[in-house]
Amino acid sequence: MLDSNWFSEPHAPAGSAISFRIKQKLHSEKSEFQQIDIYETHDWGNLMVIDDCVMLTTRDNFLYHEMMSHPALFVHARAKRVIVIGGGDCGTLKEVLKHEEVEEAIQVEIDERVTRLSEQYFPELCTSNSDPRAKLLFIDGIKFMAEAEPESIDVIIVDSTDPIGPAEGLFNEAFYQTCVRALKPGGILVQQSESPLVHMYILAPMRASMKDAGFAAVRTLLFPQPAYPTGWWSCTMARKGDDLLSFRERDASNKPFRTRYYNTDIHRAAMALPEFVREAFGE
Amino acid sequence: MLDSNWFSEPHAPAGSAISFRIKQKLHSEKSEFQQIDIYETHDWGNLMVIDDCVMLTTRDNFLYHEMMSHPALFVHARAKRVIVIGGGDCGTLKEVLKHEEVEEAIQVEIDERVTRLSEQYFPELCTSNSDPRAKLLFIDGIKFMAEAEPESIDVIIVDSTDPIGPAEGLFNEAFYQTCVRALKPGGILVQQSESPLVHMYILAPMRASMKDAGFAAVRTLLFPQPAYPTGWWSCTMARKGDDLLSFRERDASNKPFRTRYYNTDIHRAAMALPEFVREAFGE
Repeated sequence: MLDSNWFSEPHAPAGSAISFRIKQKLHSEKSEFQQIDIYETHDWGNLMVIDDCVMLTTRDNFLYHEMMSHPALFVHARAKRVIVIGGGDCGTLKEVLKHEEVEEAIQVEIDERVTRLSEQYFPELCTSNSDPRAKLLFIDGIKFMAEAEPESIDVIIVDSTDPIGPAEGLFNEAFYQTCVRALKPGGILVQQSESPLVHMYILAPMRASMKDAGFAAVRTLLFPQPAYPTGWWSCTMARKGDDLLSFRERDASNKPFRTRYYNTDIHRAAMALPEFVREAFGE
Repeated sequence: MLDSNWFSEPHAPAGSAISFRIKQKLHSEKSEFQQIDIYETHDWGNLMVIDDCVMLTTRDNFLYHEMMSHPALFVHARAKRVIVIGGGDCGTLKEVLKHEEVEEAIQVEIDERVTRLSEQYFPELCTSNSDPRAKLLFIDGIKFMAEAEPESIDVIIVDSTDPIGPAEGLFNEAFYQTCVRALKPGGILVQQSESPLVHMYILAPMRASMKDAGFAAVRTLLFPQPAYPTGWWSCTMARKGDDLLSFRERDASNKPFRTRYYNTDIHRAAMALPEFVREAFGE
């Protein structure tokens, strides 16, 4: 048993829980959309929790944020216009803006409070918010995509919560169709796609919906993420085009910015699928 | 807070905890060496806990057991004689014996009770215990290695608990020297080497000790393991020889046995090191 010095996220479908030892609760509020709590932990920096689900910790968010952005941006020949749906902590936006070829990066987060609290408690993730190429919108991402100009976007990154509550509409074919329409030829959609070990019931149908919506290529990348259920997570790339295997390896090897997880070896490695995942994907 | 329906392993150095929802405690005993508890979980099958540390669950032990055995056995040209130090649950032994080239596999577990309880609560891991090539010894692995015939072993797999308590002596240069002596030229030592994110203070010195002991090549492989702290784990291979990069890829692709995690892509992928790990290793 863990006492009140620990924050725990019991993950009911998986029957497992991940916990962090905490020093104090720093903030708690019910925003227009969800319950947001911030804790100071002993060993993981600050911790943001939305509707009782861990969103990020200071210590390990680099894994997720780097893998949500760099693989897609090094697969794309030259992503000039990037949209982040969700991602209110601004960590994905920051990684996207490390790419010099990006001319405009728009973060479309429904809940402004997530960003304001991130500015306060995760300031290191928000250092690019004032980049002249960055635009922060606090509106509904589903509506934004439905109204987006056809063939106007190079990369869409869906950095959302789990597919329950506000994010539910980001995991279905109708949404993916709006993405297909809004992407330029060769454009790429990236979506966080849960744990391969315990969420195959979400991941496999999600991939099928992407294909049904018209994406010619779909590829799931795996990476560690200790703060999320099972500590093993995935993102799935879908392309309006037929190749997600090759990437700009030389540019990735000579990238003019620092990463802590991502590199060319990791990019290739993330595409390796375990036997049970291949079987589940029918590959 | 998690109530008494959960088993939790709070991992003090990391300030995080992993928990499983349990149905009941199946067994509890203090053996000659350690406290052993077995639980039935809701979603992870059975759970073995030694001295309050999770050893394995039915659901996810395949990740660890496959990665402790198959990479080394496919790097080695033809491992005829394999020693497993620890590994009392017999899961590693079972994976080793899937390789036809193995003529003798000796499991050297100090605590016979671990194996007897595994036979009862994890019978699927013990199905090869009666293989005529298998030998189960219940003696001290450190002493076994110290007394081993020089150049008599092809692969040594140290499938131990953490480097505190009985396993402490398995993580130092003196032990590695006995391994170097006992291995044939080209022989390989594999050791579980903790979490890259929170145990670098164990992992980096361990690698240095292996090199100091005379291993020419040392390589750390990363893989997911939800039941262990951070859900991200590693094993380290050390070779009495200079190559750990190449492996029998064709044999691995055409392996005549089934795995659930390991395949050739995963083998290569496991060797990819994230930026922060490369920096910590000085590579």
